[in-house]
This record gives sequence, C-alpha cells and structure tokens, in this order.
Amino acid sequence: MDFDTHFTTALDALKTEGNYRVFAEVERQCGNFPKVKRYNGDDVQEVTVWCSNDYLGMGHHPNVVNSMVEAVQACGTGAGGTRNISGNNHLHRLLEEELADLHGKDAALLFTSGYVSNWAALSTLGAKIPNAVILSDEKNHASMIEGIRHSRADKVLWKHNDWRDLDRKLKAVGDRPKIVAFESVYSMDGDICPMREIVEVAEAHGAMTYLDEVHAVGMYGPRGGGISEERGLADRITLIEGTLGKAYGVVGGYITGSTALCDFIRSFASGFIFTTALPPAVAAAATASIRHLKNSEAERRAQRDRVARLRARLDAQGIPHIANESHIIPVMIGDPVKCRMLSDILMDDWGIYVQPINYPTVPKGTERLRITPGPLHSDTDIDHLVTALTSLWKQCAIAHAVA
Amino acid sequence: MDFDTHFTTALDALKTEGNYRVFAEVERQCGNFPKVKRYNGDDVQEVTVWCSNDYLGMGHHPNVVNSMVEAVQACGTGAGGTRNISGNNHLHRLLEEELADLHGKDAALLFTSGYVSNWAALSTLGAKIPNAVILSDEKNHASMIEGIRHSRADKVLWKHNDWRDLDRKLKAVGDRPKIVAFESVYSMDGDICPMREIVEVAEAHGAMTYLDEVHAVGMYGPRGGGISEERGLADRITLIEGTLGKAYGVVGGYITGSTALCDFIRSFASGFIFTTALPPAVAAAATASIRHLKNSEAERRAQRDRVARLRARLDAQGIPHIANESHIIPVMIGDPVKCRMLSDILMDDWGIYVQPINYPTVPKGTERLRITPGPLHSDTDIDHLVTALTSLWKQCAIAHAVA
Repeated sequence: MDFDTHFTTALDALKTEGNYRVFAEVERQCGNFPKVKRYNGDDVQEVTVWCSNDYLGMGHHPNVVNSMVEAVQACGTGAGGTRNISGNNHLHRLLEEELADLHGKDAALLFTSGYVSNWAALSTLGAKIPNAVILSDEKNHASMIEGIRHSRADKVLWKHNDWRDLDRKLKAVGDRPKIVAFESVYSMDGDICPMREIVEVAEAHGAMTYLDEVHAVGMYGPRGGGISEERGLADRITLIEGTLGKAYGVVGGYITGSTALCDFIRSFASGFIFTTALPPAVAAAATASIRHLKNSEAERRAQRDRVARLRARLDAQGIPHIANESHIIPVMIGDPVKCRMLSDILMDDWGIYVQPINYPTVPKGTERLRITPGPLHSDTDIDHLVTALTSLWKQCAIAHAVA
Repeated sequence: MDFDTHFTTALDALKTEGNYRVFAEVERQCGNFPKVKRYNGDDVQEVTVWCSNDYLGMGHHPNVVNSMVEAVQACGTGAGGTRNISGNNHLHRLLEEELADLHGKDAALLFTSGYVSNWAALSTLGAKIPNAVILSDEKNHASMIEGIRHSRADKVLWKHNDWRDLDRKLKAVGDRPKIVAFESVYSMDGDICPMREIVEVAEAHGAMTYLDEVHAVGMYGPRGGGISEERGLADRITLIEGTLGKAYGVVGGYITGSTALCDFIRSFASGFIFTTALPPAVAAAATASIRHLKNSEAERRAQRDRVARLRARLDAQGIPHIANESHIIPVMIGDPVKCRMLSDILMDDWGIYVQPINYPTVPKGTERLRITPGPLHSDTDIDHLVTALTSLWKQCAIAHAVA
C-alpha cells in the first residue's frame, strides 16, 4: 500500500468539503492580552483574540507568571519521570490539595491534560467496575466519548440535557452499576445543564455522577468551583473533572472525589500511570491561579460585564447568536466554507481573530464563529468587533435568523 | 452499588500482593541534580535520585531553564487553546521544525505527552487506514498497546525483538496494509532492538514502520536523533515517535514523518485535536534542549562513562543486573514486597532514591530496581550506591543470579 497516497486522498476530501484545518499562528505577549502577534508567512501583525479559552487572561496574571518563573528557577523545567518513578514533586501534592479544596472533596488527581483526565478516568471506571453501564449525554466532549469507548463498557446515550430521558434510560438499565457522565457548560453551544435535576435523577437510581466542569472552573461559583459550586451541588456529585488549561491559564487536567475513588484511578489508569508528570512549574502556576480566583471576584465580574455588553451590541445589530447563560457567544454560520471565509476576512482586514469552528468539533451544518469575551476586552475592542461583523453581515447577506 | 467499597476492595487486593504504589515525594533543586529534597511527612532530607528519566540532567541546564523562563515572561503561562483554536503558537512551529530536522523528516507534530503521541497516532492510523493490521512487538509500551486497542484494527503480536518471527507474521497477514510498531530502547530491560533487520523485513513486505524512540532521543546518535540516527536508518523508517520529557528534560511528545503523514494525524487524531496545546514556554525549553544536544557530545559521553563505571562496580561486587547495550541498569529482585523493602531501606538509611518497579510496569516475578546513571552522578555517588547495595545484598541474602 502507498500510505502517503492514502493520507493525501483523505486530506483532499477534507479540503473539498471545507473542513481542512489551517492553524492561525500567533505569539502571545505577556501583559498585552488579548492582543497577540499573528504570523502570516513573513508578515507579522497585531490582532485581537476573541476565541481564547484563557477565558480570564490568567495566563498573563503576574501571580501566575511569577509562580511559574520562580518554580522553573527553583526546580528546573521538567518533572523527570512518571508520578511513580521520581516524578512526584512536592508542588504536585500542593496542587492536588488545592483542587480537592476547590471542589470540597477529599482528594484530587492530576493528569497531563483535561483530555487525558476524562479519557483515563472514564476508561478505567468503565473497564474496572464489573458490569458497569455509562449513561452519557449525547453532546459530551470527544475526550469523554473516547474514554467510554476505550472502556468497552456498555454505553447508553441520553438526550442532551434531558433529565427525563436520563430517568427513563436509568430505569431501563436496571440493577447494574451506573455512571452518569455529563458536562456543566457545553463548550460549543454555551448551554448549561440542569444539574440539580440530573443529580436527583442519578441519586434516585443509585448512579455515580461524573461531571466535566472544564468550561466552568474558575468562572462560576464564589470561589471558582464551577456550576456545581454555584448551585450548591458539589457535595452530591461523585466525581468532578476540570482543567488547568482554560480559565486557570496554564495546562493540565484533574479529577476530584473521594479518597478511594482518586486512589483507584491513580492505581489502575494506564493514562495516569505511564506518563511523565507535569512540570513542577506548571503545578506552581496552576496553584497560584486557583488561589487567586478563589479569593478574587474581579475577573469573573468583568467577564460577565463584557459578555453582556457584546451580546447587547450584537442584538442591536441583528447579528444572530445562540442564547445561553454562559460566557460563550456562538455566532452561527452554518456552512464550513463561509465560516472560514468570514474568519479569514476578520483576521486579514480587521485584525480580529475568531477561529472558524467546523466539523468534527461541531456537527456539519452548525458551523460557527465562537466568541469568548474576557475581562481584558475593552469597550473599543467590542465596538471594533461589532462594527466588523455588521459590515460583513451586510456584505455577505447571511441570513439573520439563528440556525 | 457502593462504589467506594468496590474501590477499596480493589486497592486492598493490590496492597496484599505488594503492588500498591506509594509515590515518593521529592522537590527537584535546580543546579543540584541528581540531589533532590525528599518529603516524608514533616521530615525533609536530601537524597540522590538514581531512577530519573531526566537522563542527562537537561531539566536543569541553564540554556533550557533560561529559555523557559524567558518564554513565560514573554508569552505567559499557557497556550490559551487547542492548536486549532487560538493555541497554535509561533514557538510550537519552531519546535516542530527542530524535531523534523532532528530525525531528517519533512514534518513533525507535537502532542501533550509521549503517551498521547503513541496513543493518538496509533489509534488514528489503525482506525483510518482501511483493513490495516498492526504488528506489535510483544513488549511495546502501554501507550502503544492502548493506542492499538483503541483503533480496533487487527493486532498481531510478534516475539520481542525477533525479526524472524516478525517476518513470518507479516507473510501470514498477506495483502493488507501493515504497520510494524516497535521501540528502539525498551525501558525496563534496557535492551535495544535489531533495527536494521526489522526495517528490512518490514520493507520486504511493504509495511509501514512505527518506531518509538522515547528512551533514546537526545542520548544516541551524533545529534541525539536516537538509535535510528546512530545506525543510519532514520530515512527508512516511516514514523519516528519521541518524547521531550526524558533526555530533553521538559514534557511533551511528538511524531515525525512525511508531510502527508503528519498532516493526516493532525487532521484526524482526536487526542491531538481536542486538547489544549502545550505552553509556549514548554516548547521554547524543549527547542533549546534539542538544539544543545544536537551540538554537544559532552552529556552523552559522560553518561556512557557513568553507566560503564557503575556496571563494572556492580560486577565486581557480584550484584546481578541485566546485560544490555543501553544506559539502563536493571537490578533484578523478582518479588514485589522485597523490591519495595529494598527501596525503602535505600531511601531511609542511605539517602538513595531508586523506585521499586513492580507490576503492572513489569511482569509479576520480574520486579526490579531500575537504575539510570547520568552525567551528573559523581564517583562518590556511585561508590555510595554500590556500598549500599553490597551491604543490602549481604543482609538480605538475595540470590546473586539474574532472575
């Protein structure tokens, strides 16, 4: 077989359907966020990022930056091994204690990424709890889907955010160990789950609850503990999973839960055991970020203000976006080629960076520009974005109705 | 179901068989490697690490440390998104160019870890090449095993490092796309594969070759390109996978290969697409480390000297270790409880940190102390280690024959 020909053919198909991904190349500039340098061949221009998951700009916060710098200078760049073989650093333990406290749990376990935390935890639970069934919200993230798939446990999909459907499906499963897997904030539509109802349904059926809070930690709840903290439900959820790579501005993922649960995953999850630990300096930076957001409401308040302002301005111009309760503003385009074209024009002509979100990140036909306003976007930034979108809406004559 | 009871029962079983893992807690001290602080409750002592995968001490090299510090100060702590959605930093591209050059390939692709690079690349190749068969060395790393498993492609195991067996199995597979997956240096036994024979057998059958060089990059070959560079075979291998978390002293994984191959994995691998990019500062540190080791033989020479010295001293004392051509010295114990006990005594009484390697990292009955001498271990360190082991060997009356 000529492998390269196969690869090229598959890539050509992506290109034809408009789903081939071209990565914008940027250089983050500490202290200047959300402005970044954009590299385009030899050309370098300054653009404003409107699609960052560094939702609160904490990746540039002096406490976080200084903590990382100090830890690199004190401990070096890497961990030097897996957690089990010389890589378990004091700073990892401090971070895990901080995370357990954040969610009011007894224990926490750190992973190299949020993706790996979902994949490793779900694949281990599904594989190592005999006869388990995982009931998964149909819009769960790829990392959860792949973890469940890898576990080879039976999977039952329930309708997105539909606790009545979950109730019916739990009942149909009968007397087997059941794990209900869901997210608090769904990243691409920005909708928030009916958490209380889901938790109560799961409790009624004796199911474990597995909650992904990656798009909520740092941003919701009085200490940044996510939607589960905001709604006073954290203590009723078996496992809360989160990330250090979005609102906390660093990288890495984690789970929190009972001591036995975390120790079980620690002891059996291949994706935890057989991988080099995160650099101690990453742990130090994440700890500083979590501590700051436990005590400061300023970033969360400013973010909510920016989100509300942008929504109001878009509404005034008739630019369609999905209504939701979160910080995520999806402007629907509904076509991969148009979505990329709009993104290119925004970047090249307006200095605005909003990545087109196409398949497989979202279903075909629901392509969108996903906008994430943060506390560091100024009024001028918002005005400029709305002016650009308004101009493009007129030029392109895109339907003003939400897809 | 009472989930916690299930978890506790499973953990108790691990404890009974001696396979429950207790992580030693250390604090790396920049400039003082291989000495680290060891935390034991309130007690903190200085110990010498003999089991680090920061094989050359590059995690403390001034070039590497300074590159990371400067990049954190310039770009902040995190990447801010996936590679596709605002997380693709200029420093990632520079690193990928450096990696492609390291292995003489057209392209490279960065992952959050070596584990993820194997898992994501093999699961994508196995799933997305119709009718593919993966022929996997029976001692391949967990990350490769899990990637192959996840792909659901047919898998054929061949006897460890036995190219004749591989030849027979390739012939038996017949006219299907074939991927031969193997490692250069096997981490736990330290043996090196017969790479030329494997490559020639694969070529004869038109198979793709997938080579894991994680325990070789930085340390073998005139520029640190691994065993494939040392033996002049890199250009005949389809895909070379490596890590930034061992000899390069940072964190992260990668693949290198043709442009079409890397673009294919980039475009289809869930574990690449849906995860936050590595911090730009990690990329900067890794780039500095690779560049240094492309031009400096000093670390590699010193490592070989230390390894030879320790082997000779162990032989003189009759302490059994597996003979191999690599930098890894496995001292066989063959029992999980004894292995942990020896490790504990070394740590508590001698200030020597060698983690016990038990199941599932190695098969039951082959438990060992895995020693990795590096360029920064002094003659005094080696003398102290050999004195300690000699004393313990007499005390414990462990058989002097290799298991």
